[in-house]
Amino acid sequence: MSSLSHNFDKRKNLIDKALNDFVRVVFPEELYRAARHLIEAGGKRLRPSILLLGAQMVQPDIAIDAILPAAVSVELIHNFTLIHDDIMDADATRRSIETVHTKWGVSEGILAGDVLYAKAFEVLSYTRKEPEDVIKCLRLLSKACSHICEGQWLDITFENNKNVSEADYLDMVQKKTAVLYAASLAMGGILGAGTEDEVNALWDFGIAMGIGFQIRDDVLDLITPYEVLGKDRASDLIEGKMTLIMIHALKQGIMLGPSKLTAEDEIDQAIEALQKAGSIEYAMEKARELLQVGKARLSVIADSEVKSELLTLADYMISRVY
Amino acid sequence: MSSLSHNFDKRKNLIDKALNDFVRVVFPEELYRAARHLIEAGGKRLRPSILLLGAQMVQPDIAIDAILPAAVSVELIHNFTLIHDDIMDADATRRSIETVHTKWGVSEGILAGDVLYAKAFEVLSYTRKEPEDVIKCLRLLSKACSHICEGQWLDITFENNKNVSEADYLDMVQKKTAVLYAASLAMGGILGAGTEDEVNALWDFGIAMGIGFQIRDDVLDLITPYEVLGKDRASDLIEGKMTLIMIHALKQGIMLGPSKLTAEDEIDQAIEALQKAGSIEYAMEKARELLQVGKARLSVIADSEVKSELLTLADYMISRVY
Repeated sequence: MSSLSHNFDKRKNLIDKALNDFVRVVFPEELYRAARHLIEAGGKRLRPSILLLGAQMVQPDIAIDAILPAAVSVELIHNFTLIHDDIMDADATRRSIETVHTKWGVSEGILAGDVLYAKAFEVLSYTRKEPEDVIKCLRLLSKACSHICEGQWLDITFENNKNVSEADYLDMVQKKTAVLYAASLAMGGILGAGTEDEVNALWDFGIAMGIGFQIRDDVLDLITPYEVLGKDRASDLIEGKMTLIMIHALKQGIMLGPSKLTAEDEIDQAIEALQKAGSIEYAMEKARELLQVGKARLSVIADSEVKSELLTLADYMISRVY
Repeated sequence: MSSLSHNFDKRKNLIDKALNDFVRVVFPEELYRAARHLIEAGGKRLRPSILLLGAQMVQPDIAIDAILPAAVSVELIHNFTLIHDDIMDADATRRSIETVHTKWGVSEGILAGDVLYAKAFEVLSYTRKEPEDVIKCLRLLSKACSHICEGQWLDITFENNKNVSEADYLDMVQKKTAVLYAASLAMGGILGAGTEDEVNALWDFGIAMGIGFQIRDDVLDLITPYEVLGKDRASDLIEGKMTLIMIHALKQGIMLGPSKLTAEDEIDQAIEALQKAGSIEYAMEKARELLQVGKARLSVIADSEVKSELLTLADYMISRVY
């Protein structure tokens, strides 16, 4: 485990350096400062890390340098979506700092996101692999971006809509969150010259991992204090977001009401009710089940230390405390 | 001329059909309706048209079908920027209809723009030419998108800033408007397997054409009534946008003041003052000069009917009345 986390840190350092090299502060400087704001605030670099892992799983001796641009591109896409989502959700804080639009303004936030979006595709073009495979990645990544927009659109329309089913929720988070994990792993598989079977297995595992990650995110939003999470607690509850937890609770007849919760004790009461109804445990069980199925899909790829790292990372993603 | 405009219409029909084929209304339908809103409202399809012209200029017998996806991609980028710009400029009307965010909401407008952005890069990947050349186009188009964001950022920061120089303005419109014309022509040149010299000449001509187009746009914004322009008249003046006209006028000591102009007669007075000072004619002369230099650059490409079409189109772009 400690050697795994050592590898993970090494990989993260490579990614951080490449991110820094590819997104420079140039004129007009303030635009690029806004674009780099959340990138500089940190983050676990999960998506670029699994892209590299996916490539190494199908081609153990692959030169990481050649595919680092592709890894950077998925992290830039992720960061662009954070900036735009924060505008749509009117969130003032993320990673313990002001969100981009709060610090610079809404127009500026839209542009900071848009410029990262452009950079993502530019950086992808620097991937030093077969041009046909880079184009396959371009198609996969751009399609993932469409799905992210669809998922975010659904997330907004689901707010305070008590008719949202579990299937609706799973479809929404697959698009909003999971496809970028799936695309990252599959891009790694493609760039590592994996077989179609291997690439498809990586995609499916990414979907499972991504949905599990989002379910855990929903849980953490509820139970984690501001100081740990770096953003306001229970924001989903306050915004009336539909999560697996809420859908389960509604089925049990628990009505948390459309009211804007504000007082800490009201939030505490709501969470207690959700815990009593088993809604939080129900959601976590779903995440574990999905991941189990996803892991089984990976049997088409040979066991290796890198594969173990990915499995460990997936377990971490649905059990992490922030 | 009538055969030229016949060719132009034929080309536009091909582009319209491809646009329709590549951007379908799928689930969630309302997102895609919002994304298609301005596309369906029309537009001259100038950028995709010049991409096709650029390709034909360097390779007269090129199969248009194979490069139509690239042409569609630049039109989608253009439409994404319109949607986001309308949010930033708080414009309620465009092409005589409601803007996307006015009809659907700001969050929805951000997403409609973001999904077109994704579609643009997906569609580019369907271009049926040498993969190396498609990747060159990817790099060119994504860099153009960064420049568009930079230009729009500058445009916003220039508002009501009386220290903006002519050089600042030209740099801003080169980025905001001209690079997408330049990228369209250069992408055509690359996909038509043009020489480096030819591609560079197409790029330079696109810059000249694009700046000319924007200067004409600034003039039309001032002098054209709503019924013809399809959007509010003198919106630049009202928003305090810095244009070549304004910069010239300020140099002549004409102060239009920071006040929000609203009454029609106040706008009329302001325009009369600009005309008297020669500011509008000064801007138009600049556009003509730039285009002249741009045309000279095209001498490296053999004369042809297609080349004449591009030159005619460029003349139209700086003399059009809407």
